[in-house]
Amino acid sequence: MGVSESGLSGVVAELVGALGVERVITDRQRRRTYECDGLAAYRVIPGVVVLARDADDIAAAVRACARHGVPFVARGSGTGLSGGALPHAEGVLVVMSQMRAIREADVANQRAVVEPGVINLHLTAATSPDGYYFAPDPSSQSVCSIGGNVAENSGGAHCLKYGFTTNHVTGVDLVTPGGELVEIGGKAPDPPGYDLLGALVGSEGTLGIVTAATVRLTRLPQEVRTLLAAFRTMDDAGAATSAIIAAGVVPAAIEMMDALAIEAAEAAVHCGYPAGAGAVLVVELDGPAADVAGEFDDVVRLCEAAGAFEVRVAADDDERALIWKGRKSAFAAVGRISPDYIVQDGVIPRTALPLVLRQIAELGESAGVRVANVFHAGDGNLHPLVLFDGAVEGAVDRAEAVAGGILDLCLEHGGSITGEHGVGADKAKHMPRMFTADDLDTMQAVRCAFDPDGISNPGKVFPTPRLCGERPGRHQGAHPLTESGVAEVF
Amino acid sequence: MGVSESGLSGVVAELVGALGVERVITDRQRRRTYECDGLAAYRVIPGVVVLARDADDIAAAVRACARHGVPFVARGSGTGLSGGALPHAEGVLVVMSQMRAIREADVANQRAVVEPGVINLHLTAATSPDGYYFAPDPSSQSVCSIGGNVAENSGGAHCLKYGFTTNHVTGVDLVTPGGELVEIGGKAPDPPGYDLLGALVGSEGTLGIVTAATVRLTRLPQEVRTLLAAFRTMDDAGAATSAIIAAGVVPAAIEMMDALAIEAAEAAVHCGYPAGAGAVLVVELDGPAADVAGEFDDVVRLCEAAGAFEVRVAADDDERALIWKGRKSAFAAVGRISPDYIVQDGVIPRTALPLVLRQIAELGESAGVRVANVFHAGDGNLHPLVLFDGAVEGAVDRAEAVAGGILDLCLEHGGSITGEHGVGADKAKHMPRMFTADDLDTMQAVRCAFDPDGISNPGKVFPTPRLCGERPGRHQGAHPLTESGVAEVF
Repeated sequence: MGVSESGLSGVVAELVGALGVERVITDRQRRRTYECDGLAAYRVIPGVVVLARDADDIAAAVRACARHGVPFVARGSGTGLSGGALPHAEGVLVVMSQMRAIREADVANQRAVVEPGVINLHLTAATSPDGYYFAPDPSSQSVCSIGGNVAENSGGAHCLKYGFTTNHVTGVDLVTPGGELVEIGGKAPDPPGYDLLGALVGSEGTLGIVTAATVRLTRLPQEVRTLLAAFRTMDDAGAATSAIIAAGVVPAAIEMMDALAIEAAEAAVHCGYPAGAGAVLVVELDGPAADVAGEFDDVVRLCEAAGAFEVRVAADDDERALIWKGRKSAFAAVGRISPDYIVQDGVIPRTALPLVLRQIAELGESAGVRVANVFHAGDGNLHPLVLFDGAVEGAVDRAEAVAGGILDLCLEHGGSITGEHGVGADKAKHMPRMFTADDLDTMQAVRCAFDPDGISNPGKVFPTPRLCGERPGRHQGAHPLTESGVAEVF
Repeated sequence: MGVSESGLSGVVAELVGALGVERVITDRQRRRTYECDGLAAYRVIPGVVVLARDADDIAAAVRACARHGVPFVARGSGTGLSGGALPHAEGVLVVMSQMRAIREADVANQRAVVEPGVINLHLTAATSPDGYYFAPDPSSQSVCSIGGNVAENSGGAHCLKYGFTTNHVTGVDLVTPGGELVEIGGKAPDPPGYDLLGALVGSEGTLGIVTAATVRLTRLPQEVRTLLAAFRTMDDAGAATSAIIAAGVVPAAIEMMDALAIEAAEAAVHCGYPAGAGAVLVVELDGPAADVAGEFDDVVRLCEAAGAFEVRVAADDDERALIWKGRKSAFAAVGRISPDYIVQDGVIPRTALPLVLRQIAELGESAGVRVANVFHAGDGNLHPLVLFDGAVEGAVDRAEAVAGGILDLCLEHGGSITGEHGVGADKAKHMPRMFTADDLDTMQAVRCAFDPDGISNPGKVFPTPRLCGERPGRHQGAHPLTESGVAEVF
């Protein structure tokens, strides 16, 4: 595997000419800074790094790559968990961290136009004085970039009510892999023509590079109320979740943690969750005050009916912050109770939660591997943490087997191999387990439409990189009249 | 223009063999039944009509078309307003009206799986006993099919709060123009890979035929409250709309009608709207009772503050039905005050409403053409009705000029050439006014990915049908290394 030296050298020469030498990083030590994203298990030092200032820089870089047949990868803050921003050793890494302007905050139309490097939480900070915020809230929101959110279609704790990033992007400017700058969508709803925005959001950088995004601003809720409910068992907490949803309540968030995750969070941040809990739920409601008050009482009642032995209601912002601190620290906190761990990400229909959680527990027990569960219970998005000690022989393999088995369970129950972390470099191999060959061919056909030479973030998402001409010849020769020219009349 | 007789004859022979002669309509009188959809200005008798029973029938028809290079068009109930289901004279019309099974109503997961011919309102009727409904509500909902809603991404009065059809479809089974049956999306949120569902919903039949759709079921609101507010001027009604949205209220619907539309509705259905109104707003709130009560008082106050001289609150379902009767009958009612009319469909940013409405009035006055306005004010989706008498010489041309001028205004203000009726056969010519050549090339590239031979509903949506090979050679020859094989390493 490799691109000709001359290809990359040619690109570097063009980039230095177009952008100036200070924006083109060729020094190996400096390139090494970018060798991985949040999934540090995969590391590749990029061939060259470009620090983009604007759409013209990005277009120049992409056009140079297209001319020389060199791959490129876009990188925001590098917080992704599936290796989506893993560099290419003989390609260009286009870094967005200097494109951080909020170009427009059009509060009257509830839209903002941002550059891709804008930090998720900065947009909320800029618009909250006017009563608005940016709703998608991945755990990394204080450091991740909106361009990365768009690439990965990022979720978060509050996506149960507010949806994923795709529900909050109404337009983008895109540099296609051929180097054209196109506009897709805009501020107005439902534009005519194909809605390519849906395909683009979550395409993990394989269809080009977004140079600006028009996003929705959401009105800050009048009231927010948060509770922590402690249960003896995961089954009870699952039953409470189902009861809340079945009652027609749509909480802003329903998060669940099991005993092992609680233990880790306690060890790390002393969040003071009730002792003896086999599971806790964090439930948050937001909206008009009158509405929240009535529904909150329902939620308390439903938790108690499902067996909660303690329901703690946050009396103020400090108490709310403490409840969330345990939940938000849980991933990192697991480092306190285990030298190494794998963060898995899968989805099941919410109604299958109790059964799948029991099966995950059995899977871990039979393999002698501990699994901590921290997840978005409301929409069935699991994040099992598979614990292991890399120093113990065979431990990595056992942990990976359990992590893979969890995805098997998700698929068996009609779910998905990723909820919000993306496919990236990590899960491309699992795609054929979820999609038929025809399904993947259809995606591949769209990829080839944008990127016929396969230079836009190659090696991610799709299991078997193929030349576009290599696609099964279903259209070639299948239509005998085409060659005789009859089809040309359309 | 035309397909070889042998092409269509070959398809007919295959279809009769595969589906039986009673499902393949060749008789000219019977074919004529399908010569137009809701936009009767365009009429074409289809070459042959197929009455599909299931996905196998559809796949058989599409594969026969693909083999013979013959175009096909799918048709639901034929209620579309942009000629999206206009047949091809030498092609196959695949009729879905016998595929009306609701295969599954999974209320616990808030999903239903329906065949494409299912009537929109029938799904609501089937699920409302369990407390759910299908939210997209085009005016034609008692007769239009969900397959058509998916093709056109149909909107409706309540889309301000609930979104368009695309927000309510989570998966489809699709027969691609090559004849493969693929699954796109499913019941779970945010599947990995490209979200092709967004591109597919609203693609107006140009990417294949949907054989089943998985859609969201929405919980029936606890409370619905409706008011009619009468204003002296459109400006006042527009100001009230802006004030309501600015206050953070998201009504289920805000509909506006001007004096001419009110006159037409009165003549047709005697809805008893307040005399002397220059404009009326119909505002509906729904949701939890406590929430609705508080916000409803706010809406009444804001309407009065903006100059409403009468606010009539529906006391019961009958009064609500009467308020809606005027609005819902308005299109047809215009036939009472004018022999002919054009229903226009455009979008502007909501904040531009007062200005654009004044400009539309000036446009009509200067051309001596009456324009009635009935529209979804909350999301800036205009439906001006341009009145004319086809018996008067030059009247059609003047009306069409005004209708076109209205789209100019929409575009000038950053809006769109269609809000919810689609591009179809009618507005393809306007697409280059909204999109750059590169934008359209990008859409065309996707079209070619699905439909390289251009047989899936050709002549719709895109202004200049081209062979897929005819696309600008931006990818051919642009990458010198490709031919030397270097790009093949990816």
